[in-house]
Amino acid sequence: MAVTLNCDMGESYGQWRFGNDAAIMPFVDCANIACGFHASDPATMMRTVDLALEHGKAIGAHPSLPDREGFGRREMRLQPAELKAAFIYQIGALSGFLKAQGVSLAHVKPHGIIYGMAARDMDTARAIAEAVAVFEVPLFGMAGTFHEQAATQIGLPFVGEFFADLAYGPAGELLIPRTQSAVDVARAAARLGGALSEGRVAAIDGTPLPVRFGTVCIHSDPPNADEVAKAMRGVLDAHAV
Amino acid sequence: MAVTLNCDMGESYGQWRFGNDAAIMPFVDCANIACGFHASDPATMMRTVDLALEHGKAIGAHPSLPDREGFGRREMRLQPAELKAAFIYQIGALSGFLKAQGVSLAHVKPHGIIYGMAARDMDTARAIAEAVAVFEVPLFGMAGTFHEQAATQIGLPFVGEFFADLAYGPAGELLIPRTQSAVDVARAAARLGGALSEGRVAAIDGTPLPVRFGTVCIHSDPPNADEVAKAMRGVLDAHAV
Amino acid sequence: MAVTLNCDMGESYGQWRFGNDAAIMPFVDCANIACGFHASDPATMMRTVDLALEHGKAIGAHPSLPDREGFGRREMRLQPAELKAAFIYQIGALSGFLKAQGVSLAHVKPHGIIYGMAARDMDTARAIAEAVAVFEVPLFGMAGTFHEQAATQIGLPFVGEFFADLAYGPAGELLIPRTQSAVDVARAAARLGGALSEGRVAAIDGTPLPVRFGTVCIHSDPPNADEVAKAMRGVLDAHAV
Amino acid sequence: MAVTLNCDMGESYGQWRFGNDAAIMPFVDCANIACGFHASDPATMMRTVDLALEHGKAIGAHPSLPDREGFGRREMRLQPAELKAAFIYQIGALSGFLKAQGVSLAHVKPHGIIYGMAARDMDTARAIAEAVAVFEVPLFGMAGTFHEQAATQIGLPFVGEFFADLAYGPAGELLIPRTQSAVDVARAAARLGGALSEGRVAAIDGTPLPVRFGTVCIHSDPPNADEVAKAMRGVLDAHAV
Repeated sequence: MAVTLNCDMGESYGQWRFGNDAAIMPFVDCANIACGFHASDPATMMRTVDLALEHGKAIGAHPSLPDREGFGRREMRLQPAELKAAFIYQIGALSGFLKAQGVSLAHVKPHGIIYGMAARDMDTARAIAEAVAVFEVPLFGMAGTFHEQAATQIGLPFVGEFFADLAYGPAGELLIPRTQSAVDVARAAARLGGALSEGRVAAIDGTPLPVRFGTVCIHSDPPNADEVAKAMRGVLDAHAV
Repeated sequence: MAVTLNCDMGESYGQWRFGNDAAIMPFVDCANIACGFHASDPATMMRTVDLALEHGKAIGAHPSLPDREGFGRREMRLQPAELKAAFIYQIGALSGFLKAQGVSLAHVKPHGIIYGMAARDMDTARAIAEAVAVFEVPLFGMAGTFHEQAATQIGLPFVGEFFADLAYGPAGELLIPRTQSAVDVARAAARLGGALSEGRVAAIDGTPLPVRFGTVCIHSDPPNADEVAKAMRGVLDAHAV
Repeated sequence: MAVTLNCDMGESYGQWRFGNDAAIMPFVDCANIACGFHASDPATMMRTVDLALEHGKAIGAHPSLPDREGFGRREMRLQPAELKAAFIYQIGALSGFLKAQGVSLAHVKPHGIIYGMAARDMDTARAIAEAVAVFEVPLFGMAGTFHEQAATQIGLPFVGEFFADLAYGPAGELLIPRTQSAVDVARAAARLGGALSEGRVAAIDGTPLPVRFGTVCIHSDPPNADEVAKAMRGVLDAHAV
Repeated sequence: MAVTLNCDMGESYGQWRFGNDAAIMPFVDCANIACGFHASDPATMMRTVDLALEHGKAIGAHPSLPDREGFGRREMRLQPAELKAAFIYQIGALSGFLKAQGVSLAHVKPHGIIYGMAARDMDTARAIAEAVAVFEVPLFGMAGTFHEQAATQIGLPFVGEFFADLAYGPAGELLIPRTQSAVDVARAAARLGGALSEGRVAAIDGTPLPVRFGTVCIHSDPPNADEVAKAMRGVLDAHAV
């Protein structure tokens, strides 16, 4: 099965713009659309769904901790039942816009810090997996972590992710910067190429990390996000041949 | 067809309690559940859905303007597209919790000031009707206003409401107090009885107002809300015989 | 007394950027700093105060209706006591950051739609004037409207504003676009020059409008905001000679 | 110096009520008033300040993490600069209402989970102490923890607290329930009496804990909060003789 390219989308909020969705959308396979808790608002969600559908892309939900000011990147301790409810709420809300267009939800990908928290904590991972299972779609996450284990335990389809535009720490954890600077496109392409052909990527300190994935994630906010998208698309297409 | 009894439910928020849902639930037919914009939060929504299902009640969405501090009772001018999106978002979110329980949404009833605004303004009413139509359920509203006209125009089923515990102004508008005091149960029962048998209610100044309805609304926050619920249930049951 | 140049500043929010404060700051006399209700957050306020002080500028509060998603540009009906409290809250919060730096608040300028609402409604204007009077600083507003009348009635100093980068309607009302496009700098300079020398500006339909002002407002979000700032600075300096 | 009695006040929000401030206010010396981040809103703050002043009480700020849905009781990781800014914002906002009444801020007491986090973490404690120092008032906190150490390091006056209506864990940490049930008044009075006379309290497992304090904290939300307040007032008055 072909490895897909996914991108977090629809992360503007009210009058504030974020990322260059229109320039990136043509290159990706899957749009992970923000659901209003770390970014976006109902009108932005509706427009982002429309944009993805104009380009014929698969649409996933991109739910978060309830922290708009911190963009879902600040650790916050919810009880598992609260977290599960927060995710059902957000995925349900996005599903409403999909229903309005007669299309189905394709997947769910957790946003920001909760992604890393769930990778390291089974209760968190299980709360998320249970919320996603309500909607009967695959969970995008990091293979070999509690993401995968929690999904597998309840029979939820799981798709491992490779992060093309983020650095990995020595233990395989993602290093998410508070603000994105331009991505070294050639280097990202080489990393993705290596990951595809050898199933390995080098951590920031050089440690070789095994990676197992069915989808590649990029972000919309580096200044050269469209070039990154185009280049990763090229690497994936070349690999698929 | 029997006239039903509906009540706005799940209007607590975080640590704050509101209304006596547990005491009222047994008497109503339909629970209009708050969706997080004027009241409630994901965990409260999940619990309120559970409570309604334990009692076997029909569940509707109770969406609002985005104004938690004002409890959805302060006029706020959204563009029709914003309003439609806000309603799809909220109804979708509630639908997620229903999907988790394997039940279907039964209806939608707008909350607070937007209810009155839509009664008086076709653009507002149409935005709401279009949002509800996405979910293919009836709209609860005020018969003879733009609520009904907007629903009818797009073929959306419409159910007129009678308000048992609120006073009507001379033009038929609802007089919503900022805080609810105890309801005169005998008077409310007499008004409902008259409305059912004669299709008329007296406005606050005595003006006789024609009323046409398929459902009766009560609120959860008067101190004697449970007595009101029980009494209205009794009036409806007696009338149905 | 010299006519000053003021600009709304600090309207970023969390990860979202808005306007080019750093480029504009050198040209203005007064920074109107957003207070967290339509834009900004505590950390952004602290940084914006620091930026203004590095440039030695006067700092005013720029309070708003509580509507972040709508950027304070959607009409919303608060009771006068609620509005007054909302303004005291915001001005007080900004004053905390000024206290931390040992400087004093210089003025208050209402943001967005409430500016226009107060111009047309005495109760609204009075609530605002009373809030500003607590801090014993001048109110920036539109001369000849309820802004001025409410301030005058309670002995609050008032400074009239001229809007260099917005169009005026035939009745003198401001036409605030939802998103700012590039400003025609030459035209804005000519309008300001005329307003300074003749006390008149042409409305969008050509109607000549008398204008009386002690400060000129520009905005930070047009793509060429820094050029506008520089040009208006030039016009004001030339006029002052 | 007499040991004072303080209570968290003004924790209603919009339409939602919390605690019985009016019944408790007569018995306390200091009102810690919520600042809008975990509870309250501008109009509620204004009313709570008025209530405290009617009774001639000292008024302190009761700032929190920005988490209304979780009532400031969910752990949330802010950077120290963000936390400091959040506290300056809230204390400044409350100070605005005090300025409106011509009175001065008397103290600051952190709310909820950040209180415990600061007790255990110096960076958190220092951020808070620096924010309080801006306003030149004492910090209420737990003696012998980083609260005290951070305050002392920067020369900020510090007042230790004893918690009359909460249980202590074996390491001296507070056990804050998600919802308050009725307090055993006799037992609370005995604990306070012992703490005053012997400087010790028993933890939940019987461990004797040394306690050093200048003020006693009670909460407004147990159903019998007014009885607790009256009883603790009695114990303090008897002890002062």
